[in-house]
Amino acid sequence: MPELRKDPVVGRWIVFSPERQIRPERYRCEELPPTRPEDDPFLEGHEAYTPPEVYAIRPSGSAPNGPGWQLRVVPNRFPALRVEGELDKEAVGFYDRMNGIGAHEVIVETPHPQLVLEKQNLAGVARVFEACRARIIDLSRDLRMNYVLVFKNHGAQAGATMPHPHSQLIAMPVTPIVVKEKLVAARAYYLEKDRNLFEDILKSEKKTGDRVVFENDGFTVFCPFASRFPFETCVMPRKQSADFQNSTDEDLLLLAEAVQRTLAAYAEALNRPNYNLVLHTAPFRRSRHPEAWTTLDADFRWHIEILPRLTGVAGFEFGTGFYINPTLPEEAAGVLREAVTRG
Amino acid sequence: MPELRKDPVVGRWIVFSPERQIRPERYRCEELPPTRPEDDPFLEGHEAYTPPEVYAIRPSGSAPNGPGWQLRVVPNRFPALRVEGELDKEAVGFYDRMNGIGAHEVIVETPHPQLVLEKQNLAGVARVFEACRARIIDLSRDLRMNYVLVFKNHGAQAGATMPHPHSQLIAMPVTPIVVKEKLVAARAYYLEKDRNLFEDILKSEKKTGDRVVFENDGFTVFCPFASRFPFETCVMPRKQSADFQNSTDEDLLLLAEAVQRTLAAYAEALNRPNYNLVLHTAPFRRSRHPEAWTTLDADFRWHIEILPRLTGVAGFEFGTGFYINPTLPEEAAGVLREAVTRG
Repeated sequence: MPELRKDPVVGRWIVFSPERQIRPERYRCEELPPTRPEDDPFLEGHEAYTPPEVYAIRPSGSAPNGPGWQLRVVPNRFPALRVEGELDKEAVGFYDRMNGIGAHEVIVETPHPQLVLEKQNLAGVARVFEACRARIIDLSRDLRMNYVLVFKNHGAQAGATMPHPHSQLIAMPVTPIVVKEKLVAARAYYLEKDRNLFEDILKSEKKTGDRVVFENDGFTVFCPFASRFPFETCVMPRKQSADFQNSTDEDLLLLAEAVQRTLAAYAEALNRPNYNLVLHTAPFRRSRHPEAWTTLDADFRWHIEILPRLTGVAGFEFGTGFYINPTLPEEAAGVLREAVTRG
Repeated sequence: MPELRKDPVVGRWIVFSPERQIRPERYRCEELPPTRPEDDPFLEGHEAYTPPEVYAIRPSGSAPNGPGWQLRVVPNRFPALRVEGELDKEAVGFYDRMNGIGAHEVIVETPHPQLVLEKQNLAGVARVFEACRARIIDLSRDLRMNYVLVFKNHGAQAGATMPHPHSQLIAMPVTPIVVKEKLVAARAYYLEKDRNLFEDILKSEKKTGDRVVFENDGFTVFCPFASRFPFETCVMPRKQSADFQNSTDEDLLLLAEAVQRTLAAYAEALNRPNYNLVLHTAPFRRSRHPEAWTTLDADFRWHIEILPRLTGVAGFEFGTGFYINPTLPEEAAGVLREAVTRG
């Protein structure tokens, strides 16, 4: 029998239709064909193929834009938004527009073209999050910007065009509508109950435990009660923190473990699925004007969503904002938990 | 230079990045491989392959579930929701769920396996909308249901698994979050301005004309100011009506012309793209309790969205609720308008 479940944060209903399910190992996952080395702009020695780096981890102390790096952050060559210029907001007749001021950067996670994130050692995964933290802190100084979205598209079905392991970030002048919805819900919940919505979700997950995939001292990974996609996971810090960029090195090492173990479980249980990963943190407006937030940011908590792209997004999803998901999260978590334990 | 535009209904920002554009004729569109006739459940003579029909157009007066039809509506064999049972809403600890009561039906648009919607004659296209109207009216009598979403997935990239031309509808106990957002925005606009938001959009589009693709006595087709996808179109009735199911036969013939001409323009200009089509109408709650709606449904207007699937939905879109669109709607409308004129 199908079942509808409501997302406790954004109020979206998900239709669970187990009859439409296929076995996890049957999912067809396309790998991007490897780039020919001469065409890979992210290889060591190819630093001139990209715009000059804005950040890099160079333990040997090597010079910028040359070899000797473990990770590089470079502006996207085909940026969705541009850094140059004054922010200009205006009405166009009946409508509203602004110029496309922002930043679009690529985090080249490793010089190795096939070293996917889950195969890196913990220090390597942690470097990616250190780079995110550094870039968010730097971009938050630009007062034209209000938000930085960190995301990763892995595989063609998830929108990637390059197989060389990389993540992306886009800084923008407006707060994403999805983040705004979460902030509004978290604020309303806090005002009503004097409790943190995300802490209550974690408590509820720990009580039953049947949707929990992995846990360490810093993070809990679970399949959300109203998952949009089969095997979707949420990586949630166990301690309250609205701003990702306030994470310590120790936090990031624990985060690296949680993400790496989860991605490794996907790779094993689901035949290396394509996936999107997104990081939701508070907009800069909050950290810039903490005095305006009387609850001292006790209401919102940063977190990561990992969305395997095993099912499509089609007319029903666009028409409703709801999703049809063939796999109950309890089942998905069982499969992933087993893979984590074996891994 | 990129540009951000705000959707005047739901407040979503769209990032227009013309530098990421490709030429319309270069879009790669996959066709689903044709089904072998013996495997096509929607062929004439294969009526027993589907559950018994709930509606059909049989001008010859032929008996149900046999040959002699122009269009059939049948329950989906793998329904996302099920018709049987009492609606049961409950709390599960911290969360909310309900059982999956609803209906999931397939509108087989024609007995011909390759007669895509834009190649049907006007009467054939109008039949599809007549079937939608009849099914919505019938399903609205079921008081467990609150909304019927009509949608069409054409092509594998748009989520279709069968090439035989068909549309779908899903009746559900809750109003889609996307429709709710539109209703709330339309209501707020009406209360503030004493004007209809959709009428104001139409007026604004007609004033400039540069996003208009096609117009007849009943409908205006235009590329929305803040289109999510390249070549996205909206088919809007020119007269005020909140409920699609109140459309007359004459309305539906004009609608058929607007949709057919638009789809034909897509096929010609964009190399037969995969697309999703969704119909947004008012939820039943409004038509069942008109006395509760003091503005007499003057605020919301039903309409159709057509979303060519030429670009993907990836981390940025999931993480923000915004979209990156390489093609400005003025440009898209120019291309489509030319194709409509030639067609």
